Amino acid sequence: MGAVNGKDFINRLNQLKPEIWYDGEKVEGLLSEHPAFKGIIQTKAALYDLQHDPKIKDEMTYTSPTSGNPVGLSFLQPKTKEDLIRRRKMFEHWAQHTGGIMGRSPDYLNTVLMSFASSVSLLKNKSNSFPNNLQAFYELARENDLSLAHTFVAPQVNRSQIYIENSEEPIAAKVIGKNEEGIIIKGARVLATQGGLTDELLVFSVGKFLFNEDEAFAFSIPSNTKGLKFICRDTFIGGQSAFDHPLSSRYEEMDSIVVFDNVLVPWNRVFYYNNDEVAEDFIIKSSFHPFAKHQVMVRQIVKLEFILGVAELLIETINVSEYQHIHEKMSEIIIGLETMRALLEKAENHASLDEWGYMRPDINTLMVAGNLFPKIYSRFTEIIQQIGASGMITLPTEKAFHSTIRTDLDRYLQGATKPAEERVKIFRLAWDLTMSSFGTRQTQYERYFFGDPIRLSSELYNAYPKSEYVKVISNFLKNHMN
Amino acid sequence: MGAVNGKDFINRLNQLKPEIWYDGEKVEGLLSEHPAFKGIIQTKAALYDLQHDPKIKDEMTYTSPTSGNPVGLSFLQPKTKEDLIRRRKMFEHWAQHTGGIMGRSPDYLNTVLMSFASSVSLLKNKSNSFPNNLQAFYELARENDLSLAHTFVAPQVNRSQIYIENSEEPIAAKVIGKNEEGIIIKGARVLATQGGLTDELLVFSVGKFLFNEDEAFAFSIPSNTKGLKFICRDTFIGGQSAFDHPLSSRYEEMDSIVVFDNVLVPWNRVFYYNNDEVAEDFIIKSSFHPFAKHQVMVRQIVKLEFILGVAELLIETINVSEYQHIHEKMSEIIIGLETMRALLEKAENHASLDEWGYMRPDINTLMVAGNLFPKIYSRFTEIIQQIGASGMITLPTEKAFHSTIRTDLDRYLQGATKPAEERVKIFRLAWDLTMSSFGTRQTQYERYFFGDPIRLSSELYNAYPKSEYVKVISNFLKNHMN
Amino acid sequence: MGAVNGKDFINRLNQLKPEIWYDGEKVEGLLSEHPAFKGIIQTKAALYDLQHDPKIKDEMTYTSPTSGNPVGLSFLQPKTKEDLIRRRKMFEHWAQHTGGIMGRSPDYLNTVLMSFASSVSLLKNKSNSFPNNLQAFYELARENDLSLAHTFVAPQVNRSQIYIENSEEPIAAKVIGKNEEGIIIKGARVLATQGGLTDELLVFSVGKFLFNEDEAFAFSIPSNTKGLKFICRDTFIGGQSAFDHPLSSRYEEMDSIVVFDNVLVPWNRVFYYNNDEVAEDFIIKSSFHPFAKHQVMVRQIVKLEFILGVAELLIETINVSEYQHIHEKMSEIIIGLETMRALLEKAENHASLDEWGYMRPDINTLMVAGNLFPKIYSRFTEIIQQIGASGMITLPTEKAFHSTIRTDLDRYLQGATKPAEERVKIFRLAWDLTMSSFGTRQTQYERYFFGDPIRLSSELYNAYPKSEYVKVISNFLKNHMN
Amino acid sequence: MGAVNGKDFINRLNQLKPEIWYDGEKVEGLLSEHPAFKGIIQTKAALYDLQHDPKIKDEMTYTSPTSGNPVGLSFLQPKTKEDLIRRRKMFEHWAQHTGGIMGRSPDYLNTVLMSFASSVSLLKNKSNSFPNNLQAFYELARENDLSLAHTFVAPQVNRSQIYIENSEEPIAAKVIGKNEEGIIIKGARVLATQGGLTDELLVFSVGKFLFNEDEAFAFSIPSNTKGLKFICRDTFIGGQSAFDHPLSSRYEEMDSIVVFDNVLVPWNRVFYYNNDEVAEDFIIKSSFHPFAKHQVMVRQIVKLEFILGVAELLIETINVSEYQHIHEKMSEIIIGLETMRALLEKAENHASLDEWGYMRPDINTLMVAGNLFPKIYSRFTEIIQQIGASGMITLPTEKAFHSTIRTDLDRYLQGATKPAEERVKIFRLAWDLTMSSFGTRQTQYERYFFGDPIRLSSELYNAYPKSEYVKVISNFLKNHMN
Repeated sequence: MGAVNGKDFINRLNQLKPEIWYDGEKVEGLLSEHPAFKGIIQTKAALYDLQHDPKIKDEMTYTSPTSGNPVGLSFLQPKTKEDLIRRRKMFEHWAQHTGGIMGRSPDYLNTVLMSFASSVSLLKNKSNSFPNNLQAFYELARENDLSLAHTFVAPQVNRSQIYIENSEEPIAAKVIGKNEEGIIIKGARVLATQGGLTDELLVFSVGKFLFNEDEAFAFSIPSNTKGLKFICRDTFIGGQSAFDHPLSSRYEEMDSIVVFDNVLVPWNRVFYYNNDEVAEDFIIKSSFHPFAKHQVMVRQIVKLEFILGVAELLIETINVSEYQHIHEKMSEIIIGLETMRALLEKAENHASLDEWGYMRPDINTLMVAGNLFPKIYSRFTEIIQQIGASGMITLPTEKAFHSTIRTDLDRYLQGATKPAEERVKIFRLAWDLTMSSFGTRQTQYERYFFGDPIRLSSELYNAYPKSEYVKVISNFLKNHMN
Repeated sequence: MGAVNGKDFINRLNQLKPEIWYDGEKVEGLLSEHPAFKGIIQTKAALYDLQHDPKIKDEMTYTSPTSGNPVGLSFLQPKTKEDLIRRRKMFEHWAQHTGGIMGRSPDYLNTVLMSFASSVSLLKNKSNSFPNNLQAFYELARENDLSLAHTFVAPQVNRSQIYIENSEEPIAAKVIGKNEEGIIIKGARVLATQGGLTDELLVFSVGKFLFNEDEAFAFSIPSNTKGLKFICRDTFIGGQSAFDHPLSSRYEEMDSIVVFDNVLVPWNRVFYYNNDEVAEDFIIKSSFHPFAKHQVMVRQIVKLEFILGVAELLIETINVSEYQHIHEKMSEIIIGLETMRALLEKAENHASLDEWGYMRPDINTLMVAGNLFPKIYSRFTEIIQQIGASGMITLPTEKAFHSTIRTDLDRYLQGATKPAEERVKIFRLAWDLTMSSFGTRQTQYERYFFGDPIRLSSELYNAYPKSEYVKVISNFLKNHMN
Repeated sequence: MGAVNGKDFINRLNQLKPEIWYDGEKVEGLLSEHPAFKGIIQTKAALYDLQHDPKIKDEMTYTSPTSGNPVGLSFLQPKTKEDLIRRRKMFEHWAQHTGGIMGRSPDYLNTVLMSFASSVSLLKNKSNSFPNNLQAFYELARENDLSLAHTFVAPQVNRSQIYIENSEEPIAAKVIGKNEEGIIIKGARVLATQGGLTDELLVFSVGKFLFNEDEAFAFSIPSNTKGLKFICRDTFIGGQSAFDHPLSSRYEEMDSIVVFDNVLVPWNRVFYYNNDEVAEDFIIKSSFHPFAKHQVMVRQIVKLEFILGVAELLIETINVSEYQHIHEKMSEIIIGLETMRALLEKAENHASLDEWGYMRPDINTLMVAGNLFPKIYSRFTEIIQQIGASGMITLPTEKAFHSTIRTDLDRYLQGATKPAEERVKIFRLAWDLTMSSFGTRQTQYERYFFGDPIRLSSELYNAYPKSEYVKVISNFLKNHMN
Repeated sequence: MGAVNGKDFINRLNQLKPEIWYDGEKVEGLLSEHPAFKGIIQTKAALYDLQHDPKIKDEMTYTSPTSGNPVGLSFLQPKTKEDLIRRRKMFEHWAQHTGGIMGRSPDYLNTVLMSFASSVSLLKNKSNSFPNNLQAFYELARENDLSLAHTFVAPQVNRSQIYIENSEEPIAAKVIGKNEEGIIIKGARVLATQGGLTDELLVFSVGKFLFNEDEAFAFSIPSNTKGLKFICRDTFIGGQSAFDHPLSSRYEEMDSIVVFDNVLVPWNRVFYYNNDEVAEDFIIKSSFHPFAKHQVMVRQIVKLEFILGVAELLIETINVSEYQHIHEKMSEIIIGLETMRALLEKAENHASLDEWGYMRPDINTLMVAGNLFPKIYSRFTEIIQQIGASGMITLPTEKAFHSTIRTDLDRYLQGATKPAEERVKIFRLAWDLTMSSFGTRQTQYERYFFGDPIRLSSELYNAYPKSEYVKVISNFLKNHMN
């Protein structure tokens, strides 16, 4: 089969019929026609179509080593720097289609799974671990271009450092039993973006200081597995008009709470379970961070380009390019964009082979980018608000432009260099990017993409090789201060 | 008649039938039942009812010097520091009812009109100026508790410093003629908050570097004046559920573009026209700034209290009060709140009588507060987002809590110290305050309340008495460095 | 005797002959003529003379309740708000004499001692505690206008949270024995500003998480007590020329390490010892914080006025007042100054009587100021550097102006509005305030005046009454979201 | 002759006898033994010795294309990316020798001159321009390894935008005449770092909005040219002890005002004169910015490494690595260092040939770095102060460690992991880097290295290619919002 197109993706998804709860109701009918999901599903379909776009399909796919079919390049396990650069170009194609705004585009999750498969040796000869299952699932996903969501965050009941869950019934998802067919999971995970809107749900454990053994597992199951429920948050789609809601109408990805109601995970889908050492090790030692962060960084750079374009277009529209404070604000964005680009290039240039022969971009450089982006992104959304000023508020609707009042709008809302409708479009885009409930969810999402910014800075400090610099100073003290 | 109650307010408003355009359609039917307006109108009605609340009515009204009726205290022209403090308490009552969130509560506009009336002498013996009309309208409004909106910003076509409008037909509203009955206005003004939703529209000129003579005027006309059109921006009401949209469902005030289509302003309502000197002078020399900023500052303090309460309740809900970075963030809010309070107290303590015998709070201190608040407010909304983290995203709806899925929500969304529904309520409130399109409009509104922050800092620098400090240093140089 | 004048102060000090080590040598000869100390001693003498300045002596002294002599007003135990305001004016007089730059002017330490005496009841009926000794010493100091230094910080060996000193010989000063005559102290304290340059050294315990019992004590001893050694840090005096080093030549206060080499503290000077509960309680419950912070805040406000004057004089000198970024920077300083003033006024207005009848300024407001000042002060020194730009570097010396090269300097270093010598003076002052090693020590000193800024924010958060704001929100949830 | 060593450099310099004024006196005797200059001259000598260090001499020199002698690699005109990388390594060798602290190390000025020579074609066929003179001087300097200083800033009399010098006698240096031998210059330039301490002074014009024709010139003259005077600012050397003043005692470079008292510049040293068009063009179009910024960036990176080492050594010394706020501060430094490195790498990777065949590093990327560094450098000096806290103040002298008081110092100033003397050394180094008058001059120097930060951001905004991003958004509006 190989790389799917949009139509195949939608057809397969519509047949799944997972249990999704939206606004107090169980979702019935075709997912691709549900008002809360159709935008994102159509956008994803368009993304899958890129794999068959004659102009770029060679940059989007490669020949499967097993089937010989063209399969998605995001599944490619990179072994050379050239592979990394191929992967980067492919990421850019996906990202440019949505201005970097879709966080869980298929290449992200494919990359996650690929990174797991590239580190499968970590599971070898470990108790309750099944490396072959992981390898097999990776190949299954690659050959069938399965769409994936993932979930790894336990419910945020209590964030105190010393909290230990002490509840009769599980809150965080746990292994509560096993039998001949598989392991049985009960409890919940929160914040599965696109949860229920993909073929498969990839479940694994990450980031808790101390795992309980029964919370340490990894597996993948079809979204329609019995007992699996996706409870959607409120939608951030502002409306169906692409004029009024240019981003939310098509890029709102939805996040859901995942409930495991005695879900049976068949043995052939279990990667490991009840092994907290493996769970901790796997995330740290696998190529998950280098490969996932590589994709994320490419997408974020495309998003910064989008931000820069929107900001500059606002400036032209109301003719404020002469102001020195505008120069300062814009130079902040330019510095941010160029810095991210330079870090990406450096991470690739300094890539190195891991013990299993895969080419990992330089993790320290990626961590630097991962510390930086959450800060600059939210600042840049603020800059857009500051450039747009009151224009970010006075936003008439598409219907107003289709009514008799249009004459007034045309006259009184014209920009220095643009007619009123054009001017309103650019302001609505800027608003949907930074001020609508869709836009602010984006900001929050980028702020926490790889976790708590405070934890990220501790990780960077601890990981960074500082001793060589200390040695320089120690030598200075020895040579020059005696 | 005197101070109205909510019912009177609504009845009068419903009889007006101004020309309002909303989402491409002319509004028909009762304003108070229109989905886009009923929230704000009911909230304002509840505010007017405060004037008759037995517990505080003595703090909300005073005896009219002309009719002897109890009239709104916001109309009181303060002559002593005690009057200022009475006014402050009255402002607090209004503000506390909405957590400081309603920007154009009646006391704000009543204060604006009162400040104009208190400076009426500035119009005496000036050409094209009618101080008696202003005084008469002030009394009319006070005795009938007329509700007001105002508008003073010209369309943002081109914000270059050297832009001069050069259009055949007026864009910015202008006097295009006069006759026996009055003056005739054509063109537009933007951003009239609550435009069309009040008895009267107060129109005046402010803040342009160079007025064209024909853009220099001040008057008030009923909202249903012929030729007057209010074109609404898109609504920021997220929905009618108070659970899902606790703030926007009741506090969304709407902003509109005001179009003057050959509007005749009757002579008895013209305060001045075609006099750019008066227009510039009036805003600078009148008590507009001290009295309006006094009201605004009280409201903003109440809003900071609201912010502080929301932030602390989030902290308790997810139990993060032990973290030192939480202490730092909260201490920022505490410092902001206490600073604003101290500045308010100082502005009142240092109030002084103007040449006409009215007691003005200290303007320099108010300018300091006016420079400070836009910066801290947007920072505090960010702090709330940082405290709430992913919890600001995972927001189920009221209907979900009324469905069979509630059992799962109760279990998996419980907080450390709160049941799930309570937890979701507090997060939804925090979200509507800082991340919904209603919340971000609030942030933008506070950021620009008194104009461009950059201009505000120039004004403060230029107004501040610096020479005494320079003299101290000059003396130091003379005495200690020779 | 009562309030001393400068001459008396110097004479008494010169007779003391404490053991002071400076630059590897034991200080011999008259302290007041030692190049490292003469500037500060003369400046302090001038301060003491203010107590006899006919124009202000009534604002600087009051009648002793015991002797009837005029004694320093900083010893006055305030019982009314008027007393607080008298104290504030007196602080201002001291502070204005040095532009707020002398941190340990006599009024500061007198205030500390006065606050201790005003809380003497806390020592009553506690073991190893001698309230009468404290009261007697307070009266002794007041009646003789004794000059004081204090020390309370243990050596910074290891700042890890879990560090417990485990050394055979004491490092931090400890009670190592007692006998009929008194207690015996061995070990060190660091950072006694003006240590050795005052009549008395006040020693007490503060701020460690867990006291060892033997580190918990308070007493005062003459600076020339046997076994007491003061080891000076390097001086920050740049030179003796007041032109070249206008601040360091006269305001460098010196900090010293205090070594207790088996120092006997006579019983009548022991306030308490070996009582860690009292030590902790005393600092928290006494009026130390409200009274000391009151003095500090007044001084800091005077310092901000000095900063503002220097900044504005720089601006005038090079004629940059037209630049909008200058307005922004200056408005930061203005906001800082006005905020501190408003907080001071609020702290005084909301003062309240403590259980022993003393009028304490509002501690929460003072804590807010104490959190704010360290941040703004260092920012303002940066602003001065940014305004002065390269002019902060090109600084010729006084001798250059007295040489034949002066003609060139006069020509090429003239300012827009000032002759060259005047211009260089103002830049040298700005430099000595913010960039000389004296100036940067000032910045560091203000940054840590009341301890680690991070700890200060935790203290503020914990002390602040948050529950009333939480209640407002809880009511909102109850009333409006159901 | 070719690349000199330290001894040759000193000998030649000592024979020059330029007219230098220091602290009101004309400098007599050997420059290399003058207390204000001997540190920097010895350090420079050590730098020149690197050119003969057997381990790296091949990386420090190349074969002269004219003489075949080994000459300094900083004179190499790069034609390939490999050349750029060779140059980078050479810069690193110079920079590492002083921790990046010496701003005007020889490679900087050699690079400036090389960039001029590489752009000599810009002078061809222009009036009053002598490209051959420039080429000849470049070769002279290269073959003899002449040491250079430069000066380009006019006196800071009046920084108002509209200031035009209107003085009978020139203030800013001007061409006041010419004769057979050359042109005659009168007036001054300010801030020539190392002015008078080099063989030659390179003089050119830059950065004024409107040149007066007579202020537009470029030439080089020996430092001992008749009529040329160097007036030193006050020294920032704290003292001669390398223990007490580890940086200032050897790296203080001195800045001087350069006075041209009817200086005759011989025709063969004039590059151009009285041609304001050429003056403006030359700086903008020549490779001055790309090549000079390349050197500067390499040095600044080495300086950041030095900063990082000092910060981490402080942390280890007082054992504070567990604190999360320390992690945040250090991660700021790490991010800064890695960002600068990534930008350098990107600037080199994206280098391109100019029209004359020289390989220029990417200027936009260098401009980004040039905007960033001034901000982060001053922040990092603050971080060091925050880590060091009170330890930055309590600094005993070398002599104290050589006195009997040492026993006490050893005991009471010990660090968690270091003996007292070691601990004091590291704190003194941190202090000299960030808080001594030497250190703060460094901060100011880096802040303004390439001019006013506000102007730099305008330049970046204006130069940056923004239209491609605007086009992306315009397409988005067209494709997705219709």
